[in-house]
Amino acid sequence: MRHFILAIFVLTAPGRLVAETGYAAWLRYAPIDAAVRERYDTLPANVVALGDSIVIKTAQAELIRGVRGMLGRTLRAEATLPKESAIVLGTFAALKPYASTTSLPTSLKEDGFLLKSTAVNGLPCLLIAAPNDRGILYGVFALLSKMARHESVTGLNDVQQPYAPIRWVNQWDNLDGSIERGYTGRSIFFENGSVRADLTRAGDYARLLASLGINGCTINNVNADPRILTDDFLPQLARIAEVFRPWGVALSISVDLGSPRAIGGLETFDPQDARVGAWWGRKVEEIYQRIPDFGGFVVKADSEGRFGPSTYGRTHADAANMLARALKLHGGVVFYRAFVYNHHLDWRDPKNDRAKAAYDNFHPLDGKFDDNAIVQIKNGPIDFQVREPASPLFGGLRRTNEAIELQITQEYTGQQRHLCFLPPAWKEVLDFDLHAGGSSTPVKDLAAGRTFHRPMGGFVGVANVGMDTNWLGHPLAMANLYGFGRLAWDPNLSARAIAEEWTRLTFGNDPAVVRTITAMQLASWHIYESYTGPLGAGALTDILGSHYGPGIESSERNGWGQWHRADHEGIGMDRTVATGTGFVAQYTAPVAKLYESAGGTPDELLLFFHHVTYTHELHSGKTVIQHIYDSHYEGAEQAEELTRQWSSLKDQVDEERYAAVRARLDYQAGHAIVWRDAVCNWFFRISGIADARGRVGHYPNRIEAEAMQLQGYVPFDVTPPENASGGKAIECSGQAQRCEATFRFDRPAGWYDLDVEYFDQNNGESRFRLFVGDQKVDEWAANDHLPATKPGGDSSTRRRITGLALRPGDQIHIEGIPDGGERAPIDYVEIRAK
Amino acid sequence: MRHFILAIFVLTAPGRLVAETGYAAWLRYAPIDAAVRERYDTLPANVVALGDSIVIKTAQAELIRGVRGMLGRTLRAEATLPKESAIVLGTFAALKPYASTTSLPTSLKEDGFLLKSTAVNGLPCLLIAAPNDRGILYGVFALLSKMARHESVTGLNDVQQPYAPIRWVNQWDNLDGSIERGYTGRSIFFENGSVRADLTRAGDYARLLASLGINGCTINNVNADPRILTDDFLPQLARIAEVFRPWGVALSISVDLGSPRAIGGLETFDPQDARVGAWWGRKVEEIYQRIPDFGGFVVKADSEGRFGPSTYGRTHADAANMLARALKLHGGVVFYRAFVYNHHLDWRDPKNDRAKAAYDNFHPLDGKFDDNAIVQIKNGPIDFQVREPASPLFGGLRRTNEAIELQITQEYTGQQRHLCFLPPAWKEVLDFDLHAGGSSTPVKDLAAGRTFHRPMGGFVGVANVGMDTNWLGHPLAMANLYGFGRLAWDPNLSARAIAEEWTRLTFGNDPAVVRTITAMQLASWHIYESYTGPLGAGALTDILGSHYGPGIESSERNGWGQWHRADHEGIGMDRTVATGTGFVAQYTAPVAKLYESAGGTPDELLLFFHHVTYTHELHSGKTVIQHIYDSHYEGAEQAEELTRQWSSLKDQVDEERYAAVRARLDYQAGHAIVWRDAVCNWFFRISGIADARGRVGHYPNRIEAEAMQLQGYVPFDVTPPENASGGKAIECSGQAQRCEATFRFDRPAGWYDLDVEYFDQNNGESRFRLFVGDQKVDEWAANDHLPATKPGGDSSTRRRITGLALRPGDQIHIEGIPDGGERAPIDYVEIRAK
Repeated sequence: MRHFILAIFVLTAPGRLVAETGYAAWLRYAPIDAAVRERYDTLPANVVALGDSIVIKTAQAELIRGVRGMLGRTLRAEATLPKESAIVLGTFAALKPYASTTSLPTSLKEDGFLLKSTAVNGLPCLLIAAPNDRGILYGVFALLSKMARHESVTGLNDVQQPYAPIRWVNQWDNLDGSIERGYTGRSIFFENGSVRADLTRAGDYARLLASLGINGCTINNVNADPRILTDDFLPQLARIAEVFRPWGVALSISVDLGSPRAIGGLETFDPQDARVGAWWGRKVEEIYQRIPDFGGFVVKADSEGRFGPSTYGRTHADAANMLARALKLHGGVVFYRAFVYNHHLDWRDPKNDRAKAAYDNFHPLDGKFDDNAIVQIKNGPIDFQVREPASPLFGGLRRTNEAIELQITQEYTGQQRHLCFLPPAWKEVLDFDLHAGGSSTPVKDLAAGRTFHRPMGGFVGVANVGMDTNWLGHPLAMANLYGFGRLAWDPNLSARAIAEEWTRLTFGNDPAVVRTITAMQLASWHIYESYTGPLGAGALTDILGSHYGPGIESSERNGWGQWHRADHEGIGMDRTVATGTGFVAQYTAPVAKLYESAGGTPDELLLFFHHVTYTHELHSGKTVIQHIYDSHYEGAEQAEELTRQWSSLKDQVDEERYAAVRARLDYQAGHAIVWRDAVCNWFFRISGIADARGRVGHYPNRIEAEAMQLQGYVPFDVTPPENASGGKAIECSGQAQRCEATFRFDRPAGWYDLDVEYFDQNNGESRFRLFVGDQKVDEWAANDHLPATKPGGDSSTRRRITGLALRPGDQIHIEGIPDGGERAPIDYVEIRAK
Repeated sequence: MRHFILAIFVLTAPGRLVAETGYAAWLRYAPIDAAVRERYDTLPANVVALGDSIVIKTAQAELIRGVRGMLGRTLRAEATLPKESAIVLGTFAALKPYASTTSLPTSLKEDGFLLKSTAVNGLPCLLIAAPNDRGILYGVFALLSKMARHESVTGLNDVQQPYAPIRWVNQWDNLDGSIERGYTGRSIFFENGSVRADLTRAGDYARLLASLGINGCTINNVNADPRILTDDFLPQLARIAEVFRPWGVALSISVDLGSPRAIGGLETFDPQDARVGAWWGRKVEEIYQRIPDFGGFVVKADSEGRFGPSTYGRTHADAANMLARALKLHGGVVFYRAFVYNHHLDWRDPKNDRAKAAYDNFHPLDGKFDDNAIVQIKNGPIDFQVREPASPLFGGLRRTNEAIELQITQEYTGQQRHLCFLPPAWKEVLDFDLHAGGSSTPVKDLAAGRTFHRPMGGFVGVANVGMDTNWLGHPLAMANLYGFGRLAWDPNLSARAIAEEWTRLTFGNDPAVVRTITAMQLASWHIYESYTGPLGAGALTDILGSHYGPGIESSERNGWGQWHRADHEGIGMDRTVATGTGFVAQYTAPVAKLYESAGGTPDELLLFFHHVTYTHELHSGKTVIQHIYDSHYEGAEQAEELTRQWSSLKDQVDEERYAAVRARLDYQAGHAIVWRDAVCNWFFRISGIADARGRVGHYPNRIEAEAMQLQGYVPFDVTPPENASGGKAIECSGQAQRCEATFRFDRPAGWYDLDVEYFDQNNGESRFRLFVGDQKVDEWAANDHLPATKPGGDSSTRRRITGLALRPGDQIHIEGIPDGGERAPIDYVEIRAK
């Protein structure tokens, strides 16, 4: 059996290539070219693990794996110091016997580490030392990252420590294997109501997390199924904890506050009822018996229909503390989400404001939460919109632990079909000074517990990776998971530094690759914002359903409170104290002063705080309405530019990832036009103010499908109308098996590109063919899996056919073959000269 | 229905990448970079097909497909000349109306074509003209090939015509779906005794063939199953003919001469029996009713157990002419294979010689064959050995049609696991002057029917592609199919020109890629020859079975006649007139004079013609025995060099094909050492003469498995002994579930590479793990599909483990887990300092 100690260690021998599927993410350990490899010739041949915990053994194996991948060398795994140079992995305690020969920074905190080139017993060594085993593992990943980025590893003396103790991810996985707001397949944890038999992916995910210093993972939806606490389920959870443990990732679960009643045999879940507290105590005891390193609970209560303490007139602190007490005995923590609001707000009352809910609910409870309870606060006061101001609640809790909740899964930012690198957005909030307790209290310090010296605090990211091979679907979207982890470790890192690191690790160190991908990533959030939502107005998407395509009015005239209040005169939520909802008052005076006046509010947040007329002049000098038009046209053009930037890397990036990114960027460029047209036309219609540059409503190269000669096809109204060109589209009539739409081309002879805008629903796979005269020039299937069962902004998709020789008089026709509920719908054709 | 005229035309829109699986072979039509693409900006936008045969429509669609792939433009498919510039596809007949505006080379023969930039009706056009439709298709492929190789297509005036009318391939596919001497999966034509339901691959194969100008394909094994002529089968054959037809490829089948008796209800198959002739007449009639463009029959008779005319005392001409008469009515031909020999030869008689059989059998029949019968002659007198002289029969038939049979499938040349580019070998034979009828009668002219003005003649290649995605397994092996086709079209092309063309089409035009792959291909035949068979001695392989690994004595002391006659004194077949078998007399005087003396015979064929002592001095100045040693060491070293050459292209070649080639080259380099050691040790043992350079029998860095400390493993003798190091290996005893072999490393501390030579049989999947001390440093499965069920030269395989830090005193052990009939066998370990 002695030979299987390192069995967790997956062998990838040098010279044996693995395809670039994206599965390896930023831990590719790609072979380093000979010229650069020389830099590492002096790396010791031994790696000594002083200790035999599972985490330190993992660290040793990972170091061997990484060096083998990059240098084609297998280091010797030793348990004691050999009589030669070595890489030495040890806790400060284990290194004590060698204290005379080296000095250690004893001030280092839990999970921090030291990389130091130094003599041990008179021999030159590379020390990876830390207060605890997990710190050693993080030090190993840091060393390997340096090598993968071709940095020198000689003469090292690096001390790193995390900004905060809490660096967790949440997964919103359901026990049936689906993932709420997950966009990349099924759960890596659950399947058909149970934990998966094969947890390889879960273990590999923990490895990715550990490489970023993430030390906790909540595996199930915050809209929690009480069944996760049943006796049947606990042994299954223990299996997940087993694959997390080698990587120092604590398993945690979301719980339903109603569990004592739902599965505990009690008729109540009142947090003040002793039987309820006892039930939770016993349950927690059972968990720790099976999972001694269990992390704790996440709770969503009294929110969006979840059970909560309000049922019994208790406070959130009552509920949180009940759980905290049960967990405290074992070192566990409870995350209590501040995402509590009334989703039946009366939209007619101009004083109502969902943005106020978190602060209103939790500020009064400041100081009432136990020391192992953490209030988990979304970055903004609404819900992960493309741009929001920082939540005032970060400054409103001074005697309470808090953590910032950031969303890695792109729920409102393109769902990993659009490129949207989020660290720049997160940085704006993290670096925002709330003036909460002195001159400089940026959100990162408040959340980390630094400002008010809290024992707990930190960063939580909603990740929602799925079974798709590359974890997050869009190969470039993994930069968001990477970026979250890096910012949780050190929020002072710049977005540029993170993008560059990630690119080097993920695509290699070719300067053109690093330069281009970094630039694309850094531009992408602004591009996405430009064509989807202007000036901080928040969601112009279908907020009642997919949260994906345009749905400008969906947020209005309902109780969900994501209102932008656009009407014929103007747009924006007046949240001022003077004339509005008073939300601004939740900020401290210096911040409130800024936001209280339209003049003080930066353009990009204007409509979040103020209702203004369409002709209001921005700091930029433009009117609001012209800004809406211009930014949407610019954004769509920049989305197209992304495809050109990526194309320049065709020969520098592996085929598989090149093609996958290219396909997504092409789609995005098309969908950006759908967004552009929907938003611009809606505001044109509602404001009656024309685009000064004459673009909105004028599409000289566009042929509406409803204007074509139709056989089998029938025109229909699309709802809402701005989500289709001209408000109409065509689809095959109920009886038709095959339909045809024909038009005549009458422009000069030449080379043209032709776009067909059609609708790709997920309830059928229509097929299309396009003919010029008798010549079929393209065919395709509408077989994407977009979040739509009807023609509209979610399903609108572009087919681009390039390089057609067209002649005046050409008859062009599209043949559609409907399938299931998808009736081969088409919006328009657009033809551009090359 | 009018819209589906071009349905055969598979759409690959520009910008949509397809992975480089090798399926597209040399017809990738990869997008051309913008800078080069400008060169083709003036290409006309229209392609006019003057005519509506299926072949001309295919040509038009292929041109559109190719231009779209390379330029991203869709040409307009026209049926008449438009009033603008066009590419015009037409037969000379169809172009007659425009004869006043252009001149055509009326001397062009069938299948030839003209590419000409000229004015038609006063408009600048690119003419693709030919005497027949197939010529137009070939012209289209020629134009597309120029573009893919970035050649100019302006100012064209190219006339090309094939060297001979017969340019066919044979497939040795069995009706059960297996392929005799096929190395890449199952048949693309047959499955479970029937023609496959899905013939997509068959159609795509015909397209590949057509792109080379190959105009016929025989789809079944020459060891033919009579069932192919049954009434059930004919409609199935017609389905294959349908997918061949668009590409101008004639379907042909191999037939069993015993068919009239086997399936025809006759008690005889005597070619002189009128009932037999009538049966064949009716059968042929039935075939042509279903397949009007049927090509004809291939016959293997009186050979290796096949039925033949000898049963009734008839001649091969009698048999061939019986079939020829039946086919003549319909324009069909019969190929009668000259591969007829006695495989029960008495090896004790030094005058016996299989090499003489073809000439002895067929030369006396010269002039007796009908004009639509063709004698199909293998390139050499034996059977596709790595080197043979030209068959004298090419010069021995002056009044008979002939065709040369070349083997594309690498039966004796590494079975597509070893790189062996065969055009240089074929060129040696094609260009060899047999002095048959004048001063210059190279084999290519004799086979093509040019020398003696025969109505028929040409080239037949045994291809044996299979269902593996890339057709021939080794990505570089497709150069042999390409090379055969190019030489069949024009045997005057140089091997270098062919390798370069193929590389450009298959891997692109990057100069380093073209230079490196061309060099590798051109060197590869000589490399393979160097480590497998010296000086024309012929097969040193296991000729009774796999025809793959070393089996030096397998050819001796049996009736198959592939003798090399090696004994303690010397080696070689004496085929001289003076003292040997007299085979040399089959050549005309000038050639016979050359071969009759050892001094006149070139070194590389010495042992084919002469029996000499081991100390015989070669023209090179070396002794025969030292040449055997040196060439095998050099060949193995050059095989290793191939891996280095290929590695230099890592960033220039797509990942998928890079990895596939790399894996095969690594294997080859290992297997070359198996060959080297087997051949050298066998000759050392039999000759008793030591290697002047002291290598043979001395392996200072090698640890024999049988010398290790064994647990569960037991030593055994390998047969023949030279196929394992030291003649012995180890395998798990019958009871053992897990075995271990341990040895101590006692060389200086340092970085080492370690090779494990093990045996990978196809009757089990053993697993191996290698440990240094307690540290597992590698693990692998013996899961290749080599042609072996026992440990030996066919199954011997190398696992290379690079970059190990070893220290004196290290205990190294290999753990083997046997599976099925494969008992985790190991030969030796070799350790080299880095």
